[in-house]
Amino acid sequence: MSAKYSIGLDFGTNSVRALIVDVATGEELATSVWNYARGQAGIIVDPRDPELARQHPRDYVDGIVATVGETLRQAAAGKVFSPEAVIGIGVDTTGSTPMPVDARGEPLAFAPEFADEPAAAAWLWKDHTGHAEAEQVTETARRLRPQFLAKCGGKYSSEWFWSKILHCKRTAPKVFDAAHTWVEIADWIPAVLCGTTQPDRLLRGICAAGHKAMFNPAWGGYPDEEFVAALDPALARVRRSLPARAYSVNTAAGRLSAEWAQQLGLRAGIPVAIGAFDAHLGGVGSGILPGTLVKIIGTSTCDMAVAPLGTPLPDIPGLCGIVPESILPGYFGLEAGQSAVGDIFNWFVHQIQPGGGAAKGGGTHEALTAEAEAMRPGETGLLGLDWENGNRTILVDQRLTGLLVGMTLHTRPAEIYRTLIEATAFGARAIVERFEEYGVKIGRVVNCGGISVKNPLVMQIYADVFGRPLEISRSAQTCALGSAIAGAVVAGGAAGGYDDFETAMAAMTGTLERKFVPIAANQAVYDRLYPLYRRLHDAFGTKESAGSLFDVMKELLKIRDEVRG
Amino acid sequence: MSAKYSIGLDFGTNSVRALIVDVATGEELATSVWNYARGQAGIIVDPRDPELARQHPRDYVDGIVATVGETLRQAAAGKVFSPEAVIGIGVDTTGSTPMPVDARGEPLAFAPEFADEPAAAAWLWKDHTGHAEAEQVTETARRLRPQFLAKCGGKYSSEWFWSKILHCKRTAPKVFDAAHTWVEIADWIPAVLCGTTQPDRLLRGICAAGHKAMFNPAWGGYPDEEFVAALDPALARVRRSLPARAYSVNTAAGRLSAEWAQQLGLRAGIPVAIGAFDAHLGGVGSGILPGTLVKIIGTSTCDMAVAPLGTPLPDIPGLCGIVPESILPGYFGLEAGQSAVGDIFNWFVHQIQPGGGAAKGGGTHEALTAEAEAMRPGETGLLGLDWENGNRTILVDQRLTGLLVGMTLHTRPAEIYRTLIEATAFGARAIVERFEEYGVKIGRVVNCGGISVKNPLVMQIYADVFGRPLEISRSAQTCALGSAIAGAVVAGGAAGGYDDFETAMAAMTGTLERKFVPIAANQAVYDRLYPLYRRLHDAFGTKESAGSLFDVMKELLKIRDEVRG
Repeated sequence: MSAKYSIGLDFGTNSVRALIVDVATGEELATSVWNYARGQAGIIVDPRDPELARQHPRDYVDGIVATVGETLRQAAAGKVFSPEAVIGIGVDTTGSTPMPVDARGEPLAFAPEFADEPAAAAWLWKDHTGHAEAEQVTETARRLRPQFLAKCGGKYSSEWFWSKILHCKRTAPKVFDAAHTWVEIADWIPAVLCGTTQPDRLLRGICAAGHKAMFNPAWGGYPDEEFVAALDPALARVRRSLPARAYSVNTAAGRLSAEWAQQLGLRAGIPVAIGAFDAHLGGVGSGILPGTLVKIIGTSTCDMAVAPLGTPLPDIPGLCGIVPESILPGYFGLEAGQSAVGDIFNWFVHQIQPGGGAAKGGGTHEALTAEAEAMRPGETGLLGLDWENGNRTILVDQRLTGLLVGMTLHTRPAEIYRTLIEATAFGARAIVERFEEYGVKIGRVVNCGGISVKNPLVMQIYADVFGRPLEISRSAQTCALGSAIAGAVVAGGAAGGYDDFETAMAAMTGTLERKFVPIAANQAVYDRLYPLYRRLHDAFGTKESAGSLFDVMKELLKIRDEVRG
Repeated sequence: MSAKYSIGLDFGTNSVRALIVDVATGEELATSVWNYARGQAGIIVDPRDPELARQHPRDYVDGIVATVGETLRQAAAGKVFSPEAVIGIGVDTTGSTPMPVDARGEPLAFAPEFADEPAAAAWLWKDHTGHAEAEQVTETARRLRPQFLAKCGGKYSSEWFWSKILHCKRTAPKVFDAAHTWVEIADWIPAVLCGTTQPDRLLRGICAAGHKAMFNPAWGGYPDEEFVAALDPALARVRRSLPARAYSVNTAAGRLSAEWAQQLGLRAGIPVAIGAFDAHLGGVGSGILPGTLVKIIGTSTCDMAVAPLGTPLPDIPGLCGIVPESILPGYFGLEAGQSAVGDIFNWFVHQIQPGGGAAKGGGTHEALTAEAEAMRPGETGLLGLDWENGNRTILVDQRLTGLLVGMTLHTRPAEIYRTLIEATAFGARAIVERFEEYGVKIGRVVNCGGISVKNPLVMQIYADVFGRPLEISRSAQTCALGSAIAGAVVAGGAAGGYDDFETAMAAMTGTLERKFVPIAANQAVYDRLYPLYRRLHDAFGTKESAGSLFDVMKELLKIRDEVRG
């Protein structure tokens, strides 16, 4: 039998990637990336409001055309490949990135009257404009539906579905009124390929619905209308626009439409898998199974684990979500993460521009890394909190900010750079400990994402701080690979794909030979520093600690926001 | 009667300045600065030990020759000046800067066997190698002589006389054994000019002895031999080498020797005033009187006040010293200060080099100031603790370090720069409040030192944070002017000088017309930020606060020092 292929489409924060994979081996035949054309690096921003981050859906459509076309051209340049042998497509995206659409499922952003209205675009995951609304959702749920909070870490985030819709209702009522419903882009993009964007035909994924919109089969799906109306009566209409069911990635969202098949040069009718978040399909692309923590380390992180359905799992405070089948069919998906990791290093290098800039031999990741690598743990005398973009897990609080302590008149930029890396490592350790405290044993840690392959200093510090070996996923694009695996599974064994994810992952994923192993002397120092990190973490991040400084960061932001007006 | 002149010599951290002043008006005829030639910018450092800072006494002697010679040449280029009309000399220096000398009063640093031995040089004020010894002095005094501590703020500092001598005994015993006695350079330099460096002829000043060596007439002078021997039996010999009395700046240390008169081209026999610290004579040069706080704002600050002898003054926790006649004869001298102010801004600009360096249009004080000036109080969302060089007043703790909180991924270098300025302003406010809490009313604040004249942004922020107008001293070199005033007073009225400091200051000092007045809106925001600063200040700086984080900075330094070995 001749080789079969699957295509994974990975919609990131700044760009979209397509990947063609050999279904039998996981071999990656061709890949291509297209940078979104609109906004700043693909993000619509507002200089007056640093919390606003939107995206134009035209970029998603253009990105499919550009990357699939280019990837097929590359693959065809090889000997054996034929587009006819592509048996399925999978899609992953950022999220929660909800978007208002009209009754036909067309984005409001496509309507001329909303062409320049950021509220009509997709509300990118890192848009934090809805933090007041997030607090309202949390408070309301605490009062009326505490069970909702228990599954999302005890706090509802400003990054999530209902916070954003409620904020739209309050700040852009025309957009809110014009919206027939709101769709996560993870659901909308597969529907585009299948011609099923009409709200009554569009299938929604359990991943986005469960982790971000409080969908759970335990209470019959999305939150009930009474609860939603308690947030704002106008939201009841949005609630009624949502379906009763949500699907895992082993379900097809539909089949590739004739129009798209022709445009892309693929067979019409091949299945397109239900979309899921990049991190979750990245977990699949890294071979996630019970006992394995998959860490996707990039600008931010996602930390994922699974546990068989039926396992008696407690609610885990601070976890972004515990959702049945959100990662793998047959398993609970558990999602944690850090709001910023690479973004913090980038901030220091590009915004603060330490060391006099590249022209003076400093101010680049490379120069700072070279200097930081020569340091031993503890010798900087510095300690930081990794909250420059808030804290997702375990505090679920976007209104936390960065902290650096220990500076002297001798402190150098590379010492701060190393401290920022260490701070993110301590934050990552807090997540691992939280999993294990609640009975989710972590046997292996498999890492993927840009930083895991490009930055051995970061990985060694993480191994030293964790006190356990770290593996690196074989693929450099695990999210797109996970999507391709989903494409192979929805295609099914009869079509040359697979009937289940376990078999597909065993064939198509793996880890590199190189592991990062803890250095005992380093681990010993970090075991002394970590309790100090936790002291600061609890003092500034929780209300309950003795002499809590919890309100200091809040009050600074409040004064800032008042002064800025 | 023809004009009379006095010379002030000001020995700073990196350079020495001479100033010739018209005694009748305070007019400054000529001035000249000479940078110390040895070490890095005049400071002998050790790359392995950032706490070490020494100075070679040859630089003091060379500095007299260079600056007095140049200043007299400049003055003679005018019409009326004659070196014969110089009636007195005053000297101020850094301190506590003690130096080991032999039985003839020669610095051990001049001996060939100690030519390369940093312990034989002068131990510059900012040498912090003796912090363990400082703790021992504090603990021993707490146990045996609590009255000693009450006059120096409750803690003995690593910057001071006995900490340094004890550290020398423990780490450089050969130097300790070779030393006949230890002399503050404030005492040694006047003695050099008078040819009275032999220990039995050298007069010691009350300023250095009282503020740094626990000298107080209330207990009969220097600390008793029993106490000193309790620190280390070997110190008893040093104690026995010290005299019974110490003198205020209205006393002559002696008269200019024939050799020095010839070398400098001045009249032999003119009086040289007892030396005092730069800050204290800077207070004199700013016209200090009861109710006036004089702030000398440079790399660090000294904040000085006086109260009439006989005033019932309580002990004031955290003040560096309350010493009779240490600033002005007839008054208690009260000294407070911040361990770093300009040094913090310089660290950020020169060590961290933010904004990509001058070549990219950032990374200079000017560029950062221009950007920071356009910001309103509170809009950075940032807050800092100004402890990059420890905290002198009100915590008296060199083992405190810097802290910055509130960073986001949008934080820019100029926002941090402004926050560092604000942090020093809050630290300065804590000092003013401490004075007033203990009954030392502050009616006027007169500022001098480089920053007060060069940096209106800093001064406006200070006015806004203090909530009171700030005046600026008329002279740009108040320390040297204060020394010249001391020279005029020891010369006496009969010689064309003055018989007391009050009359001399009225004639020779003044303030600029320009005042910095608080802007009400800014003051209102800072009145909200200051309590947050105090929360962090107390949490990290005191053991007594609820949930104290006092040990965090200490533990980081301990780990750092262990790792560095």
